[in-house]
Amino acid sequence: MIFILFLLTLLSSHSTSNASVVDFCVADLSSAQTISGFPCKSSLSVTINDFVFSNFNPGNTSDNPLLRASVTAAAVHQFPAVNGLGISAARLDLDIGGNVPMHLHRGASEILMIVQGRITVGFISSDNAVFVKTLSKGEIMIIPQGLLHFQFNAGRSKATAFLALSSSSPGAQLLDVALFGNNLSSAIVEKTTLLDPAQVKKLKAIFGGSG
Amino acid sequence: MIFILFLLTLLSSHSTSNASVVDFCVADLSSAQTISGFPCKSSLSVTINDFVFSNFNPGNTSDNPLLRASVTAAAVHQFPAVNGLGISAARLDLDIGGNVPMHLHRGASEILMIVQGRITVGFISSDNAVFVKTLSKGEIMIIPQGLLHFQFNAGRSKATAFLALSSSSPGAQLLDVALFGNNLSSAIVEKTTLLDPAQVKKLKAIFGGSG
Amino acid sequence: MIFILFLLTLLSSHSTSNASVVDFCVADLSSAQTISGFPCKSSLSVTINDFVFSNFNPGNTSDNPLLRASVTAAAVHQFPAVNGLGISAARLDLDIGGNVPMHLHRGASEILMIVQGRITVGFISSDNAVFVKTLSKGEIMIIPQGLLHFQFNAGRSKATAFLALSSSSPGAQLLDVALFGNNLSSAIVEKTTLLDPAQVKKLKAIFGGSG
Amino acid sequence: MIFILFLLTLLSSHSTSNASVVDFCVADLSSAQTISGFPCKSSLSVTINDFVFSNFNPGNTSDNPLLRASVTAAAVHQFPAVNGLGISAARLDLDIGGNVPMHLHRGASEILMIVQGRITVGFISSDNAVFVKTLSKGEIMIIPQGLLHFQFNAGRSKATAFLALSSSSPGAQLLDVALFGNNLSSAIVEKTTLLDPAQVKKLKAIFGGSG
Amino acid sequence: MIFILFLLTLLSSHSTSNASVVDFCVADLSSAQTISGFPCKSSLSVTINDFVFSNFNPGNTSDNPLLRASVTAAAVHQFPAVNGLGISAARLDLDIGGNVPMHLHRGASEILMIVQGRITVGFISSDNAVFVKTLSKGEIMIIPQGLLHFQFNAGRSKATAFLALSSSSPGAQLLDVALFGNNLSSAIVEKTTLLDPAQVKKLKAIFGGSG
Amino acid sequence: MIFILFLLTLLSSHSTSNASVVDFCVADLSSAQTISGFPCKSSLSVTINDFVFSNFNPGNTSDNPLLRASVTAAAVHQFPAVNGLGISAARLDLDIGGNVPMHLHRGASEILMIVQGRITVGFISSDNAVFVKTLSKGEIMIIPQGLLHFQFNAGRSKATAFLALSSSSPGAQLLDVALFGNNLSSAIVEKTTLLDPAQVKKLKAIFGGSG
Repeated sequence: MIFILFLLTLLSSHSTSNASVVDFCVADLSSAQTISGFPCKSSLSVTINDFVFSNFNPGNTSDNPLLRASVTAAAVHQFPAVNGLGISAARLDLDIGGNVPMHLHRGASEILMIVQGRITVGFISSDNAVFVKTLSKGEIMIIPQGLLHFQFNAGRSKATAFLALSSSSPGAQLLDVALFGNNLSSAIVEKTTLLDPAQVKKLKAIFGGSG
Repeated sequence: MIFILFLLTLLSSHSTSNASVVDFCVADLSSAQTISGFPCKSSLSVTINDFVFSNFNPGNTSDNPLLRASVTAAAVHQFPAVNGLGISAARLDLDIGGNVPMHLHRGASEILMIVQGRITVGFISSDNAVFVKTLSKGEIMIIPQGLLHFQFNAGRSKATAFLALSSSSPGAQLLDVALFGNNLSSAIVEKTTLLDPAQVKKLKAIFGGSG
Repeated sequence: MIFILFLLTLLSSHSTSNASVVDFCVADLSSAQTISGFPCKSSLSVTINDFVFSNFNPGNTSDNPLLRASVTAAAVHQFPAVNGLGISAARLDLDIGGNVPMHLHRGASEILMIVQGRITVGFISSDNAVFVKTLSKGEIMIIPQGLLHFQFNAGRSKATAFLALSSSSPGAQLLDVALFGNNLSSAIVEKTTLLDPAQVKKLKAIFGGSG
Repeated sequence: MIFILFLLTLLSSHSTSNASVVDFCVADLSSAQTISGFPCKSSLSVTINDFVFSNFNPGNTSDNPLLRASVTAAAVHQFPAVNGLGISAARLDLDIGGNVPMHLHRGASEILMIVQGRITVGFISSDNAVFVKTLSKGEIMIIPQGLLHFQFNAGRSKATAFLALSSSSPGAQLLDVALFGNNLSSAIVEKTTLLDPAQVKKLKAIFGGSG
Repeated sequence: MIFILFLLTLLSSHSTSNASVVDFCVADLSSAQTISGFPCKSSLSVTINDFVFSNFNPGNTSDNPLLRASVTAAAVHQFPAVNGLGISAARLDLDIGGNVPMHLHRGASEILMIVQGRITVGFISSDNAVFVKTLSKGEIMIIPQGLLHFQFNAGRSKATAFLALSSSSPGAQLLDVALFGNNLSSAIVEKTTLLDPAQVKKLKAIFGGSG
Repeated sequence: MIFILFLLTLLSSHSTSNASVVDFCVADLSSAQTISGFPCKSSLSVTINDFVFSNFNPGNTSDNPLLRASVTAAAVHQFPAVNGLGISAARLDLDIGGNVPMHLHRGASEILMIVQGRITVGFISSDNAVFVKTLSKGEIMIIPQGLLHFQFNAGRSKATAFLALSSSSPGAQLLDVALFGNNLSSAIVEKTTLLDPAQVKKLKAIFGGSG
């Protein structure tokens, strides 16, 4: 029994008063964020349940008759244990006709793994090449960081994909929401997109933008 | 039509001779590796098929009566498009009784997402705490980088999980293979593990180690 | 004179055959790119001229009657000495009414420094807040990495800004070019932007998109 | 109007209680610093004014008859919005004869962009090569991180440059201040620079060093 | 004397109220850790003694009759000044027959420098190659990050090595402690190591494991 | 024996044709460098001898009557196995009166571990604070990256220290060599250091500078 005590002193970052070393850093969401994530919850209060996210279930796509899509995120705000580990996950459910329109993640590349159904996935590169494919079970696709991309159901049944992202806080900017769902003035939207005023007005009505 | 030409010159990394900017860097596996990955395949020869991995199918667990497990990796060597993007994926299939023994990935944290069945997943932290849970559909678990961990089928049917790892080249060190499956001498294995000679001999026979 | 020889051997990375240490790594643009940039040109052929970019002059905004804007980039393809140093620059010239529409840099934050005139600069954050301001001489603005942003001339005279970006290869995705200037099919553009077919057709004509 | 609510739940890092994701992290300078910068100010109190620095005006070079130079910094302490974004800026004004003596930034490479006048810029590499050039309008120069460098007015009129640095906290070590402007003893300065005692004494008087 | 005041304003990150720039970040161990280390102690209270660790003395190897080894760590918990600087140190003392069994550091590569005696050092790579050598004075060895490795005294006298690690918080996982020194159940240990129950029981007794 | 074959396919980055994963990347010094180091030597030709550096012996301090100091570096050019691992080492020998004058490493923090004798070590921070201490056996000191520092023998016998640096290619800029040992013109040295012409001339003669 004396040996174990000795051996623990071998552990080069071990501290007797506070056993934490940064193997992991479960986010304390109540503390102020830093650029590299949240401060760590005390390791004394960390349990196995911190490392498990139990909400990776089918989303309710009928809540949204426009897009018939649901994304269930397990990033740092929902799953604090990924804080600082450079990875997060999400579940994508697409009803028949379901659609996740053009968007991007400023902070992460994305791997999309088909669980059921058929999904068309596409992205556009900085040098303006288009990469699109309809994926089925047994296929996965990688979407590089920060590029505009989209997913929509290409089949006649529900479709599900599991997503993994290369950041615990990937961010997301959905194009229509960014352009038409806030208080950016119509005049600026028109000038900076070259869209017609009527088109801007119509989409502002749908996405709830003012101005 | 003149506008598009102009606009392309706006793209700040655009080069007329070679349009590639490093949105992505599909690995040229035939070139010498660098510490940060492989050199990029010419962007002129990159197509949508580079970004899709089509082998994410059930592995053959019956090939291995000892472990009844199969791991199908989609890391940089199998899926060159993940090169440098900080992420990779794998599919884990476990037959009834299937087992992936103690191992670690020196270069990646891992998110495990249950697709079907029940899997017991566990890891041990640097300060020697044990984190184990049996997961079912709708649950995912994060395993921090570089720690010993394991997975085994906890149910009465086949189990499948999709894995994502926070590196395009996570590495893997399976404990029994590292100790008993190479030419590390029995004397050194015994001295550095404190295992009995008979135990070492028995496992060397199973895992094919010499010396 | 013997001392200098001795002292050079003190330099801990000094190599007698090849004096280069990676203080800098002027890009050899003819070699295959890696995810972290280009291989270095031999230090024996590097001169002061590699570190100076002499084309930071007013661009010709009249070449483009639609946007009346010009961006002169000094990123790795134009200015190979910035390779791997985490920074690049650009010069923005805006004629009266000049406009750089919605775009983003997947790989860099941007600091914009007004040299002359008045420029309206804006960006939209991931949580959909709008940040817009008209800047004059004596003002600079920071635009965080990977977010949609725009600049247009807000005054009655020409305007010029110097830009610095936090990457040697920031990339750029101009929204209208990405949506309307390539072979992404009209059907997909409509589905993934919710724009009307007539609007898509009109902008495809302007930006030269096919399909 | 229901759609916008739905769409926001698509944003994978969105949190209803606190909308911040780390698109940006405006420094809370009143909190304790971390090695990667300051904790973030609450996103609820961030406005467009945080992203604009309005003091980028000509400095008063006559305050310093010795050097006739002025540097106006916009790094994290003066411009908290650059915190964590890997970039900062500064404005350099040089009167006729103005001079910024040998110094280095331990944490950043620097791009110098001439706005007016002529400036001689030079740096010395680790393998002891000298890179010097006199720059005019239309020219920019890159100085790699951590190397001794200098700037002085090479013309017959005032000169101005805009600087960008590849860190929000580049640091600066001005050689004469480090050697002669603190309490490092004359004996140690002499031993570690090989300068004559009289020279050390003279410069200590100018730069205010004690000991 | 006026000059020094001027010159300090040249220092681009200088702040008159709080002179700290992040040259260093001596850990405030009483604050909550972040994934990149501890917040910094106020620079006003930092002295030369923070940068010196005075306990780098021979450890007491007789405290441990089983291993006859001692490791004296100077990582962030013992030596707060290394916080965030990407390096730490340790001193290894091995009595005759002394032995540091199989272990790994998830967060650091290690350089081992022989001070006296002869030490056998070995590691196993991810592709299962074995690298072993007995080192004497004048030799140093590098062990890549995250791989199983070991050290034992190969001579007939005491041996000492100085170690440096490429992280301020390298972590350490000693195999026998991780498997046999905690509450991981014997059934799981047996299943995930393929060791015999008797062997597991014997080592659990030595290392103090329960379950 | 069949099991081992199976198990190897479990290793997620294993490639049957080329077993290398980037556990390590022994530098191929004959290839062109990249900003992150050298390309890797083929793993097929890597042996244990690559990981051992056998020249860590006392340097010849009598070769240099001026400084009576010797530094034996084990950085990437001398010890290719450290390539990309973020660490290197050096051995410092100081004769009685031996002296390593003011210098800096742009790319690394340094830990200095006393092996024998007494050494005065000092550095100056960006905010111009001086940190100096005379160290004896049992003491180690950390010097933060990129700051001017020095070491000299403070005792009456030879002194030796082992150094570790947080980069495989730390670089070194010795102040007197940078100022007086190259072709930087005396006029520029005088202007940018404020040293007297006679002093510059004297040191140029010692360090071999021209111009």
